[in-house]
Amino acid sequence: MVSLSHGARDAARAGSRWRRAGLLCLCWLAGLVTGLPAMAEDGYALWLRYVPLDAGRQAAYRAHATELVVDAGTPTGRAIRDELQRGLHGLLGRAPVPAARAGRAGAIVVGTPATSPQLAALRLDLSALGEEGYLLRSVRIDGRPATAVAANTELGALYGAFHLLRLVQTAQPLDALDIHQAPKTRVRVLNHWDNLDRYVERGYAGESIWDWHKLPDWTGPRYTDYARANASIGINGTVLNNVNTSAQSLTPMYLEKAAALAGVFRPYGIKVYLSARFSAPIEIGGLETADPLDPAVRAWWKAKADEVYRIIPGFGGFLVKANSEGQPGPQDYGRSHADGANMLAEALAPHGGIVMWRAFVYSHEEPDDRAKQAYTEFVPHDGRFAPNVLVQVKNGAIDFQPREPFHPLFGAMPETPLMMEFQITKEYLGFATHLAYLAPMYAETLRADTHARGPGSTVARVVDGSLEGHQLTGMAGVANIGSDRNWSGSHFDQANWFAFGRLAWDPYLDPEAIAREWVKMTFSTDPGFVDPVVAMMMGSREAVVDYMTPLGLHHLMGRGHHYGPAPWVEGGPRADWTSVYYHRADAKGIGFDRSASGSNAVAQYAPPVAAQFGDLATVPEEFLLWFHHVPWDHRMASGNTLWDELVLRYGRGVDYVAGMRRTWDGLAGKVDPERHAQVAAFLAIQEKEAQWWRDASIAYFQTFSKRPLPAGEPAPPHSLAYYQALQFPFAPGDGK
Amino acid sequence: MVSLSHGARDAARAGSRWRRAGLLCLCWLAGLVTGLPAMAEDGYALWLRYVPLDAGRQAAYRAHATELVVDAGTPTGRAIRDELQRGLHGLLGRAPVPAARAGRAGAIVVGTPATSPQLAALRLDLSALGEEGYLLRSVRIDGRPATAVAANTELGALYGAFHLLRLVQTAQPLDALDIHQAPKTRVRVLNHWDNLDRYVERGYAGESIWDWHKLPDWTGPRYTDYARANASIGINGTVLNNVNTSAQSLTPMYLEKAAALAGVFRPYGIKVYLSARFSAPIEIGGLETADPLDPAVRAWWKAKADEVYRIIPGFGGFLVKANSEGQPGPQDYGRSHADGANMLAEALAPHGGIVMWRAFVYSHEEPDDRAKQAYTEFVPHDGRFAPNVLVQVKNGAIDFQPREPFHPLFGAMPETPLMMEFQITKEYLGFATHLAYLAPMYAETLRADTHARGPGSTVARVVDGSLEGHQLTGMAGVANIGSDRNWSGSHFDQANWFAFGRLAWDPYLDPEAIAREWVKMTFSTDPGFVDPVVAMMMGSREAVVDYMTPLGLHHLMGRGHHYGPAPWVEGGPRADWTSVYYHRADAKGIGFDRSASGSNAVAQYAPPVAAQFGDLATVPEEFLLWFHHVPWDHRMASGNTLWDELVLRYGRGVDYVAGMRRTWDGLAGKVDPERHAQVAAFLAIQEKEAQWWRDASIAYFQTFSKRPLPAGEPAPPHSLAYYQALQFPFAPGDGK
Repeated sequence: MVSLSHGARDAARAGSRWRRAGLLCLCWLAGLVTGLPAMAEDGYALWLRYVPLDAGRQAAYRAHATELVVDAGTPTGRAIRDELQRGLHGLLGRAPVPAARAGRAGAIVVGTPATSPQLAALRLDLSALGEEGYLLRSVRIDGRPATAVAANTELGALYGAFHLLRLVQTAQPLDALDIHQAPKTRVRVLNHWDNLDRYVERGYAGESIWDWHKLPDWTGPRYTDYARANASIGINGTVLNNVNTSAQSLTPMYLEKAAALAGVFRPYGIKVYLSARFSAPIEIGGLETADPLDPAVRAWWKAKADEVYRIIPGFGGFLVKANSEGQPGPQDYGRSHADGANMLAEALAPHGGIVMWRAFVYSHEEPDDRAKQAYTEFVPHDGRFAPNVLVQVKNGAIDFQPREPFHPLFGAMPETPLMMEFQITKEYLGFATHLAYLAPMYAETLRADTHARGPGSTVARVVDGSLEGHQLTGMAGVANIGSDRNWSGSHFDQANWFAFGRLAWDPYLDPEAIAREWVKMTFSTDPGFVDPVVAMMMGSREAVVDYMTPLGLHHLMGRGHHYGPAPWVEGGPRADWTSVYYHRADAKGIGFDRSASGSNAVAQYAPPVAAQFGDLATVPEEFLLWFHHVPWDHRMASGNTLWDELVLRYGRGVDYVAGMRRTWDGLAGKVDPERHAQVAAFLAIQEKEAQWWRDASIAYFQTFSKRPLPAGEPAPPHSLAYYQALQFPFAPGDGK
Repeated sequence: MVSLSHGARDAARAGSRWRRAGLLCLCWLAGLVTGLPAMAEDGYALWLRYVPLDAGRQAAYRAHATELVVDAGTPTGRAIRDELQRGLHGLLGRAPVPAARAGRAGAIVVGTPATSPQLAALRLDLSALGEEGYLLRSVRIDGRPATAVAANTELGALYGAFHLLRLVQTAQPLDALDIHQAPKTRVRVLNHWDNLDRYVERGYAGESIWDWHKLPDWTGPRYTDYARANASIGINGTVLNNVNTSAQSLTPMYLEKAAALAGVFRPYGIKVYLSARFSAPIEIGGLETADPLDPAVRAWWKAKADEVYRIIPGFGGFLVKANSEGQPGPQDYGRSHADGANMLAEALAPHGGIVMWRAFVYSHEEPDDRAKQAYTEFVPHDGRFAPNVLVQVKNGAIDFQPREPFHPLFGAMPETPLMMEFQITKEYLGFATHLAYLAPMYAETLRADTHARGPGSTVARVVDGSLEGHQLTGMAGVANIGSDRNWSGSHFDQANWFAFGRLAWDPYLDPEAIAREWVKMTFSTDPGFVDPVVAMMMGSREAVVDYMTPLGLHHLMGRGHHYGPAPWVEGGPRADWTSVYYHRADAKGIGFDRSASGSNAVAQYAPPVAAQFGDLATVPEEFLLWFHHVPWDHRMASGNTLWDELVLRYGRGVDYVAGMRRTWDGLAGKVDPERHAQVAAFLAIQEKEAQWWRDASIAYFQTFSKRPLPAGEPAPPHSLAYYQALQFPFAPGDGK
């Protein structure tokens, strides 16, 4: 109630902007008290909530935000001005006074040496900032203290403005700033797996936010808020359409629609990209082939690229899923991935566009081990890709499992820039209702050491180009964004979007620090809230691993939709679309032998890694069953047998979720009731489903192990047949 | 700025609730001034916005809202209390003080004689109010003036509470109330054509609001707001799933999910109904037949009904689309519609449930005229339906066209209660972006005179049961509700939901009065806004008729999705799924001859109607081409030839939309910028598409008429081939 009396007192003072924001605060409280819907915390504002700080902090920060000097003569300049006004007004109860030049102590001066003579006069060293970096520095202008947000470009200044707001949101001091930031990767993009009918493949947050039918004529405010949110975390591109795409997205009608979105995003530095269907020359071009070496096909793509850039100035380029899961590609014509990618690259090059060519492939013939296929197909082409091609590689060799070892391609294609593809949407991690903070998973891959050039050759160094000296670098995140009011399907899934952006900007950031930032910006800076919530988040992904796929198990989810446990899945069109292919449980043991005695997938890693993973004595337990078929009575580090350890891990995952529920229930007074209620309800669903995973998995694997459960571990409450009979024909996000 | 100074002045007074709402007002203005998103008018609040009245009105109303006396001991009682507190607080800046009994002048006393001794003591005559009616009366209690909201049931009292709020929202006096209201139909239901995967057939407002995957565990606040909105307009039931339904909706898993929704809706008097797939006994029951005379099938449905009522107490009943457009039905087994409906009715009867059996049928064999088919199939069964069956009849005999003559079944089945089915979603009226207020269309049908029992035998009297003395009566509206923030896809489409509810309650209401209510509740009571907007709405549906299907033309929309003009559609699986079947244009003329010289569909109407429609000299011009094939040079009442008149009508429709744009643009200062911007953008789309309709239609029909356009009428800017080549493979709402 501190804010209430505070707001009421100030409301009596007429004429100040500060009063208005005080009232906003008061309104929010009034809403709580009276049940009015006025400012329901529905999650729409994401981490850009800008709610009032407490009075003490407001007073301290206001001394650093008296005036705002920014050249608003361009769209990006206006975006900078509007965001800082909006954010500081909300946080501090008073927006800085717009000024043409700093004339008071506490001015904020934002821009480039070209747009701001006062910044130019400071002769700041911006040489290391590149086109997107910025510095935040406490300076003196005409003898008065000021905060400089300086960059070589307006986009850099916009990023700096968001950083400044983040400092206030997370209660950092502004007294002695000296921050230099430049992104460590160049292409930081979301991949929307959104179809033109607004269905989102693997989407758990409603339908696509792209309302194609009403585009280009109607571009609602949500598109701008999307751009703001992305720019605030450094994302500079978005692929609008699904990698499993229709060629229609390249027709003039749809290019006009994409252009309308590009126009909204442009001031925020976000380029539009499109997934290109490889067979488009046939489907919308009227050609009889899509052979990448056919001159007519090449001419068609060149003309199409020219047309795209005519309609969408500043277009980013194409993302391509080729020869994978039934998609067309160059192999249909006996050509290589490099042939296909280079044809598109040639068409885009005159315009500065790039190709992001996915390495997630599998051929029509089933390989002995699907984990090996991308490496087998791509490594021979290292060095053959055009300079404006990035090969986009998933974090692991299978498919976005709760845990995978790093993809063996990282470090294995030194001549080719490899882009990281992370999945933000939780296809295999419980959909929107399971709380799983993914930054630890992303960081686990980024920190993994490929040993490609000796120790310290981390995946992050492959991705940021420093290991092999590549300039064209990038990171892609498969978006978890949809039409749900809270964007991501759950409040906590917003953290994964946020964390992806932060890690794309700097792959070396600490997941816990990111979580802490996000919690403060999204919920509260109260340490009594922040500390337990961050702790809960940090263990949440490991809990999913435990209750779904412990000890290196993988790909045991329901067929097609991937909802719930289905380790019994077998049969169907291909063996590598079943669960039994991956767990290989039998009377002797469980796990996929990828060691030298098995598929020898380990040999795709650099020798030190191959040696570690390939040896039952040295393989990390978290990857045990990924690389080895292990006897049920194998003795684990804990002293337990494998079977007992497996059962205990399942239970540990369930227990963790129960603990998250207790933690969250105890925080009821520290967060608005709307978001508290939804998170609480989702945690209840998660606990129920974690239990289901544990029970169904144990019921199934026990038919092989034929061993009793460890003492004290309850038997599954239902028969295996019960779990096997459950059907979910309308589970969301299925590929259709 | 009146409200601003008002709010600021009051804000200085501490401690009053009034202050908080004044601040809300101020906040809204602050938002406008500063661009803050605080209280963006995004349409979510519908017609229940409850924003502050001006100070003068607030003062006047507050004298009638000093205390609130309502027994909040039941869920419906709490809903009454909460709605009145929320609404009056919002509107008046101060909620009435809750009290156990009226003790001050200006109390509002709500309830039944059973819940309120003070109401009982007034000895009000409630005998004519039935189970859902109410009265609002200015009374004296203990010598002090008070407002009584009295009913025989709590649901009646809830409806009365919403009426009281409506009076305040629309600036009506509360001084001398004596209002009696009881609904004129018993079953007032929405039909959601929502699939279990959240796809909405003919939905233009996003995906289904039913988040089946998260049900029953998560029931978000939107479900409650849905119930509030519906109760506020008297809707008392909702069919959750599409008439083209999966049998899965009757499995225990989905019944549990439906039960969770029913639990949210129950306090608001809204019963849950389900569409039942006729072949469910085969698909989920394991039987080999769904023959309605098979004892095992009958037993299965009885057991299913018992199960449904066990899981969903107070369940409403089944809606069935049988033997229509490929759906299974009793005719598959040589049985009649009555056989099918009565089997389900028998299963539901012990629980008080009803069957709504749709008359929208067409058989596998193509009839000589599809308009005749429902009559042909149903009239012979009049009198054979069980007492708890309603036959649900669309307003016209084809399919929700912009204009249809009333369905010939109305008045033709005196022994059977016929329920009206209106379409609220604008499948054939331009989807969400065309502004078309549908109450005039609904009223046109309701006011049509069937002459079944002589003059004055209106459709409304068939529907409300008064013509034939039926007690079981009803009206269904195919919902336009989806996950879009504004619920209905556009702000003005909310008016059609509202108007449907009001007309279901009282089919004799005036469409203009409904529009006036809605505009005041939704936007503003400023006459400078209300008058032009109501005028614009009132002509808007006629404009759609003009630019799409003037003079009785029908069913000329794009194949499948029904988006845009496609009078050239021919071929395909059935003739009656083409456009040429309906317009029959040729060198001589245009129109479907349904007179005695043609299909003689007119003979399905009572003789006076048949005579009027069947004669070229007496048929209303609005139905001219519905009933007659008319020469191009036929002389119209205007003196124009048919061809010239047709061209001019198309143009008149376009001009009307241009006029709506001008009107709306001129109202920019009188409405919040968010809603103004979206409506303006949609009107621009509508004008563009109206022009497209006009141009494409004229280009096509001119190939038959071979006549020049009337002087001054511009030629279509493109060739017919251009219009014919346009493709919209991802237009929303297609049946898939």
